[in-house]
Amino acid sequence: MREVRLSLFGFGNVGRAVARVLLEKELLFREKYGLKFKVVSIADTSAVVWLPEGMALREALMVKENFGRLSSWTNDYEVYNFTPEEAVREIDSDIVVDVTNDKNAQTWHLAALRDGKAVVTSNKPPLAFHYAELTKEAERRDVPYRFEATVMAGTPIITVLQDGLKGDTVERIEAVLNATTTFILSRMEVGLDFEDALREAQKLGIAERDPSGDVLGIDAGYKATILHCLAFYPVTFNDAHAKGIAEITPEEVRRARERGNTIRLVAEVREEEITVEPREVPKKDPLAVESHENAAVIKTDLLGELVIKGAGAGLKETASGVVGDIIKASMKLRES
Amino acid sequence: MREVRLSLFGFGNVGRAVARVLLEKELLFREKYGLKFKVVSIADTSAVVWLPEGMALREALMVKENFGRLSSWTNDYEVYNFTPEEAVREIDSDIVVDVTNDKNAQTWHLAALRDGKAVVTSNKPPLAFHYAELTKEAERRDVPYRFEATVMAGTPIITVLQDGLKGDTVERIEAVLNATTTFILSRMEVGLDFEDALREAQKLGIAERDPSGDVLGIDAGYKATILHCLAFYPVTFNDAHAKGIAEITPEEVRRARERGNTIRLVAEVREEEITVEPREVPKKDPLAVESHENAAVIKTDLLGELVIKGAGAGLKETASGVVGDIIKASMKLRES
Repeated sequence: MREVRLSLFGFGNVGRAVARVLLEKELLFREKYGLKFKVVSIADTSAVVWLPEGMALREALMVKENFGRLSSWTNDYEVYNFTPEEAVREIDSDIVVDVTNDKNAQTWHLAALRDGKAVVTSNKPPLAFHYAELTKEAERRDVPYRFEATVMAGTPIITVLQDGLKGDTVERIEAVLNATTTFILSRMEVGLDFEDALREAQKLGIAERDPSGDVLGIDAGYKATILHCLAFYPVTFNDAHAKGIAEITPEEVRRARERGNTIRLVAEVREEEITVEPREVPKKDPLAVESHENAAVIKTDLLGELVIKGAGAGLKETASGVVGDIIKASMKLRES
Repeated sequence: MREVRLSLFGFGNVGRAVARVLLEKELLFREKYGLKFKVVSIADTSAVVWLPEGMALREALMVKENFGRLSSWTNDYEVYNFTPEEAVREIDSDIVVDVTNDKNAQTWHLAALRDGKAVVTSNKPPLAFHYAELTKEAERRDVPYRFEATVMAGTPIITVLQDGLKGDTVERIEAVLNATTTFILSRMEVGLDFEDALREAQKLGIAERDPSGDVLGIDAGYKATILHCLAFYPVTFNDAHAKGIAEITPEEVRRARERGNTIRLVAEVREEEITVEPREVPKKDPLAVESHENAAVIKTDLLGELVIKGAGAGLKETASGVVGDIIKASMKLRES
């Protein structure tokens, strides 16, 4: 049995889903992997709560769900006003888990790696802009830097590209990587115009209040950039050409349907180019996904076309990727 | 740069495809992974050819393709009449590669592992009958035992089950794992009866002269057994219920089509049961594969349904899995 200390950054929907999985599957992970996870700190935007002996996750969940913020937690725990970077430096842990949406988290990812701490993240911008620096630092310090949940939630496309095609040379990836645009386009297929479909998505919590990241293709562009880094070589989002779905008209959607097709926001990743744009795809195509599903078609020299399709969003589904990475990072730490 | 010595058993279509990939991608593998592969022996049913300094693969391929057997190779190489087990013991190598169809290969897999040699195999029966013993021995000796190509050729379902779902608990796998039966059923859809479709498959080299392994569901049953071992716990093929497609009538195929469905040989793997049987699946279902494609739908507690679809047969496609495993085993050996 090995105890692994986790420092959790972000206690929104995803962070709490991760905490719930760690709680519910605690016994299973002990038995299956010989790993006992101890969460030594949790940070939300209100505070960093820290207890070196490990915190009661169930209580943390209750506080957050009842009071909306961790700073309301009145007990023996130390509550700090650390910046994430300070917290990473101060708090002794084995793995820093980033489930925030801090766009500049690369600074504290790097601080963690330099400290010899592993990093597990579902946060895309650090990778979409600093992939080379982050992965090089991790390699230099020989600590795991894992990011399965950044693309297609827990659907293991990162694992497949990192470990499943070692003898193959990837030629192209085509993928639908953003579920919010799929929802909006699906609603437009039944007659809504873009604005109404977007409003519906916002009401259901599928689109954010500021929906630009999704509808302008930025989120899909981040993910496509990460796939390029894995399949070919490191680039940044600045090298990607992203076009969203805001200009799609109900008329275009209707005409596509008449041709037996459907419009989806498709990312195409080639060695020399990354593009994200709405495309008409045949209804039978693997990319004609519905609901919160994402899909990727990976074309390689030996294997031909490989299709991976699965959840691209969702709380448990994202926690699947984060927790899987925590386990892999822990097993790697144990080896050394 | 690290030199890795390979001992190749089997020089039929798959063995030669592996040799061709190692030749063609030699430079790439050196650059990308810092690995230089040296094939120190090749065995076919006629002989074991051995040269500790490494053999000329191009020449080996020419001899085999022109004369049909390695024993015709007249040069400085040592030609032996070893049994595989003797060869494994005598020949100094880092990785034993089994691309034979030796049903009792577990004996020499175990001999290799006990000798501290890694094993990479595309050969199913050893795993379908001796999974627990083989993987335990590999663990005890801390050497890689890899078998990606045993199920779905190079399509990385083994990698996904081993490394891509660490936080998830698998609930069920449904899969089409045998391409020969898909071919026969597809031909029956256009009007042929089973016997004629089988004869056509044999003429095209898709079915073997003795087709029982495919059409009786044994091949798919072996693969389903291996998936069970990975997803749940070790069992053997004796625990599987396999039924083939020999009794399917053109009438049944026609009626399924009328309902918008198609009949495929479906493996269902649950913790308590493994079944392989022809099933009617909707045309839009991921399992309604065509041609040499295989597909698996993996259902887990966190992620929901994950679909993996890709080549399930073919020479380059199988070599993809074998060579990928050779690379992974080499990287693991390098670590220690």
